[in-house]
Amino acid sequence: MKLFYSPGACSVGIHIVLEEIGKPFSLELVSLKEQAQNTPQFRALNPKGKIPLLQRDDGSLLGQYTAIAFWLAASNPEAGLWPTGLEAQTRALEFVDYITGTVHPQGFTRQFRAGMFTPSEADQPKVVEQGKALAAKCFEVIDSQWRGDTWVMPEGYGLADSAMFFVSFWAIKRVGMPVPARITAHYQAMLGRPAVQRALAASGMAA
Amino acid sequence: MKLFYSPGACSVGIHIVLEEIGKPFSLELVSLKEQAQNTPQFRALNPKGKIPLLQRDDGSLLGQYTAIAFWLAASNPEAGLWPTGLEAQTRALEFVDYITGTVHPQGFTRQFRAGMFTPSEADQPKVVEQGKALAAKCFEVIDSQWRGDTWVMPEGYGLADSAMFFVSFWAIKRVGMPVPARITAHYQAMLGRPAVQRALAASGMAA
Repeated sequence: MKLFYSPGACSVGIHIVLEEIGKPFSLELVSLKEQAQNTPQFRALNPKGKIPLLQRDDGSLLGQYTAIAFWLAASNPEAGLWPTGLEAQTRALEFVDYITGTVHPQGFTRQFRAGMFTPSEADQPKVVEQGKALAAKCFEVIDSQWRGDTWVMPEGYGLADSAMFFVSFWAIKRVGMPVPARITAHYQAMLGRPAVQRALAASGMAA
Repeated sequence: MKLFYSPGACSVGIHIVLEEIGKPFSLELVSLKEQAQNTPQFRALNPKGKIPLLQRDDGSLLGQYTAIAFWLAASNPEAGLWPTGLEAQTRALEFVDYITGTVHPQGFTRQFRAGMFTPSEADQPKVVEQGKALAAKCFEVIDSQWRGDTWVMPEGYGLADSAMFFVSFWAIKRVGMPVPARITAHYQAMLGRPAVQRALAASGMAA
């Protein structure tokens, strides 16, 4: 398998899933900083111009964070990332979808790429502030709806945790915003996992 | 079951899924036009302030379009909305996630709620134009990656189709933008389904 990723992007969540599974995979850099997602070469692979993108062993390409996480977790049951039982699976997907569909674009894309929101450069600081406020609200919601203990879900460590991690990394490490104590504890617990350490080291992210 | 919805919102996709399944459900209006998603009453149910929200027969609440669609389809296999086999399931989730996570917020929220993107009212027409261009690009991507025939997936009608429908409805009916022929044909095929007709009629949407 090959993961198309960018250092510090949400693709690190999938990278962690791959490390947890432990099957061979390679990395291919698509630097968002250098807009590599918009090159004709990458657009030929993924016309959406998005990472993460996973090339599987049969050569087929799979996009969309939630779908990649679902496929990896469900097709590698021995890794224990995909809970058994429909209710637990549904809650895991609900969580991952909130992270990737709301917390990331509403909270953090506003902060990191304010120009995607406003056509006026002078308004960018306002968009960044909105992003900070929205991210803080999202973390409150996550805290209030937390179902697990150390890990996000009561069934234990799984695909919800690597999704939680990439937004925590942004909040704690990149932005330096205050987050609820439970989320700091989760972040620390994640940093203790060898799979997370390997993913961060391999993608040039210092924790 | 009870679906919290707003007329013309993406919740119509879940409404169609419920109609296809055919089990009893009721509707509860949360009018986005009147900002009812932000009332303390609704925020007490869903602190995210989002619809669709599904209250299940055991009273529990489930949010996030993709998770609701997954749960409804997978827990009602006799309705045939959730394909068998992990690969087909993954492709269906990949499609639904693209619609709900990109086409909806990037293409259409820009057009319908430009004020969410720019702090300056004078810039709103530019944001609307960006939304139109992005929506057109998304429909090109969908067209180029279409796997099925009449329906989105080669396995036949399923949860991808009701997600496709709500953005087609916006494009064709609400915005009047040109869409690829295949998508017009899909929209027409959807309008021929009794479940779609019932959902539109019940939520005050004229096709």
